[in-house]
Amino acid sequence: MSNEHHVVIVGGGFAGLAAAKALRRAPVRVTLVDRRNFHLFQPLLYQVATGALSPANISAPLRAVLGRQTNTRVLLANVRNIDPGGRRVVLDEDELAYDTLIVAAGSRHHYFGNQGWEPLAPGLKTVEDATEIRRRVLLAFERAERERNRSPARLRASLTFVVVGGGPTGVELAGALAEIARHTLRGDFRAIDPTTAQIVLVEAGDRILPDYPERLSARARDTLSRLGVKVATECMVTGIERERVVVRRREREIRIPAHTVLWAAGNKGSPLGRVLAARAGAELDSAGRVVVAPDLSVPDYPEILVLGDMAHCADHKGEPLPGVAPVAVQQGTYAARLIKARLTGKARAPFRYRDLGTMATIGRAAAVADIGPLHFSGLPAWLAWLFVHLMKLVAFENRLLVLLQWMWSYLTWNRSARLITGTSAFSTDDE
Amino acid sequence: MSNEHHVVIVGGGFAGLAAAKALRRAPVRVTLVDRRNFHLFQPLLYQVATGALSPANISAPLRAVLGRQTNTRVLLANVRNIDPGGRRVVLDEDELAYDTLIVAAGSRHHYFGNQGWEPLAPGLKTVEDATEIRRRVLLAFERAERERNRSPARLRASLTFVVVGGGPTGVELAGALAEIARHTLRGDFRAIDPTTAQIVLVEAGDRILPDYPERLSARARDTLSRLGVKVATECMVTGIERERVVVRRREREIRIPAHTVLWAAGNKGSPLGRVLAARAGAELDSAGRVVVAPDLSVPDYPEILVLGDMAHCADHKGEPLPGVAPVAVQQGTYAARLIKARLTGKARAPFRYRDLGTMATIGRAAAVADIGPLHFSGLPAWLAWLFVHLMKLVAFENRLLVLLQWMWSYLTWNRSARLITGTSAFSTDDE
Repeated sequence: MSNEHHVVIVGGGFAGLAAAKALRRAPVRVTLVDRRNFHLFQPLLYQVATGALSPANISAPLRAVLGRQTNTRVLLANVRNIDPGGRRVVLDEDELAYDTLIVAAGSRHHYFGNQGWEPLAPGLKTVEDATEIRRRVLLAFERAERERNRSPARLRASLTFVVVGGGPTGVELAGALAEIARHTLRGDFRAIDPTTAQIVLVEAGDRILPDYPERLSARARDTLSRLGVKVATECMVTGIERERVVVRRREREIRIPAHTVLWAAGNKGSPLGRVLAARAGAELDSAGRVVVAPDLSVPDYPEILVLGDMAHCADHKGEPLPGVAPVAVQQGTYAARLIKARLTGKARAPFRYRDLGTMATIGRAAAVADIGPLHFSGLPAWLAWLFVHLMKLVAFENRLLVLLQWMWSYLTWNRSARLITGTSAFSTDDE
Repeated sequence: MSNEHHVVIVGGGFAGLAAAKALRRAPVRVTLVDRRNFHLFQPLLYQVATGALSPANISAPLRAVLGRQTNTRVLLANVRNIDPGGRRVVLDEDELAYDTLIVAAGSRHHYFGNQGWEPLAPGLKTVEDATEIRRRVLLAFERAERERNRSPARLRASLTFVVVGGGPTGVELAGALAEIARHTLRGDFRAIDPTTAQIVLVEAGDRILPDYPERLSARARDTLSRLGVKVATECMVTGIERERVVVRRREREIRIPAHTVLWAAGNKGSPLGRVLAARAGAELDSAGRVVVAPDLSVPDYPEILVLGDMAHCADHKGEPLPGVAPVAVQQGTYAARLIKARLTGKARAPFRYRDLGTMATIGRAAAVADIGPLHFSGLPAWLAWLFVHLMKLVAFENRLLVLLQWMWSYLTWNRSARLITGTSAFSTDDE
């Protein structure tokens, strides 16, 4: 066992992987712990959920990414506890002593206290989430096709898809569902017409993409409407049942009969945040994120850094930074620089997020982009979106595979990865 | 409901899909029933199991394949029973009346009465089988890396992979496992050396690839040995336990401590064979296959045809035809011709299999081929194998994607689809 400074990184997402890579030449040992053996490019996960890409296309095995980085090892393990006093991370079967600990374990869906909604309205965070959503969406059409003798009302519910949450994920999911129903599946069925499917995007606020400039929100809404998506703003979901979503709009209660409901409405920091709260006295915000100091450390424990989706890091206006990949990557790189500076006794300025802009895609040749002073939409934004996302994929091979599949889908409208898989792949009940 | 002759096809594999496609212009209505919404190119399934390809790369959604074939509909449903007297197929929630019934429901693994071995030694038939095998193989390495403090004997068992059955699937799996251990994972671990993994191919007969000419069997054996696979012929598996395989060689009992065991030793016809035996008086062979008449029909029920892996169809020497894709495809095409001939009152000669040869790949630039008078091996056989398998993929897009991934893997030794997924993706126990 060497005496080198040991950095333990929990989580191989954008933040953790960026930190590990930036420590490549540092005089430290690095151990990256993750429960999964791959880094997942979450911004394209909705394309897996909608049958356009395969899980492996947006994944990179962590060992392949870090295999040649000799100061780093990868451990597939589950973190059970953190002992800030003893500077140890407790795994299921082992424990790791650290000098610096980076906690970047991401987030899960936030149902705001309605945990019972989770099985009825799955969210989209993991590969398994994506294949489950794909299964539900495709089975909804299959079910409608199979049951010829049902009432028009039930048939309509079978072919109604409600997406809850008008942020980028919700917008992208709704746009992709509209494309599937209107184009991909057109002509594939005999008893039903998939183009009659209803897609409803429900947002509690007064506009979709609330973090974008108003003009782009309006553009996105127009584009979605043109694709056939019903955008229902100022609609607060108050109930999700087996075949129905209940929303409140101002004082009115509206019931939407719908067989398939997808959740894109909120995130909640990893449960490791609660561990840090209990053991290191960290403060959590309402979304379960750890409130970090300007250098991303936990107050009282400068050797513990919290990054990415599970960190509440205030920007210069005091607002928490959004849970997006660029924030996570910049925090990972910052954390590595901070560790290197501390090793040589230097000080470092607080973390500052350089906002390089945000983009969201809506459908074929349709996107919105907000890049510094530039706000643009339509084909140019879409091409910019395609290019940036392709280039950010970690594995070069995946860039080629994804590009090829995008080109093919663009020409044919096909989505070849529309497989219904899983142990309950065949299910005739209302799963 | 039209009065046209109604052909119901059970199963969208090679036989069923070939029959459906060949009935495209026939004056019949076709209903293709499958429990899955996609056709699976099983000959490449071992590449999914070994992380080289994604499931969607070797799948084609049935609706996409048959969407424009207007006389055909696809039904995602489970066949529960067959009523030959009433000419009805009973589904879980519905039933279908037929004029001609094609049963082509394939096969599952055959454990020869040792059904308890199934969870310990999974076979390779479905996409879920393939991702489960991938998970087990990758987790074996991860487990060994994580547990530093184990005995050398346990570590050796952790890194021992036994493949049972020396047919083409077993040979292909063993060759791919050797490549993963010797090349793909080289340098990826810190505590273990993956190149020390042992791969053992166990075959009960006196040579592997018993259906091939002896010279090619010997070649395959040499190639596997060069790749580091131990080929154990004349070894009958007599027991599979949690961390051990027991084989008998002549009178000696040998215990192989092994954490991972894969089953490629035998097939058993679909349970629908038993339904036909009970309801239509069909005869079953020892592998549960339906013994069919020379025109592939069930004796006494000329309107029921049984094709593919679940049919026992004797060749001119009286031997049953092997359960391979070319037999299934030719039977599907024959069945369609037979139906068309019967509609016009014509007779048709019995089914004759045209053997176009067989090939098996062993590893990088290594394969054996037996094509009519030609027996060849090495690079030429491998290139022939690559070309034929690429061209036979149903979806054109998949040909490009698979070609690209093969080229990439060839250059880099990487296997980018090596994801550990599934609901029990993270499991620290000895699953």
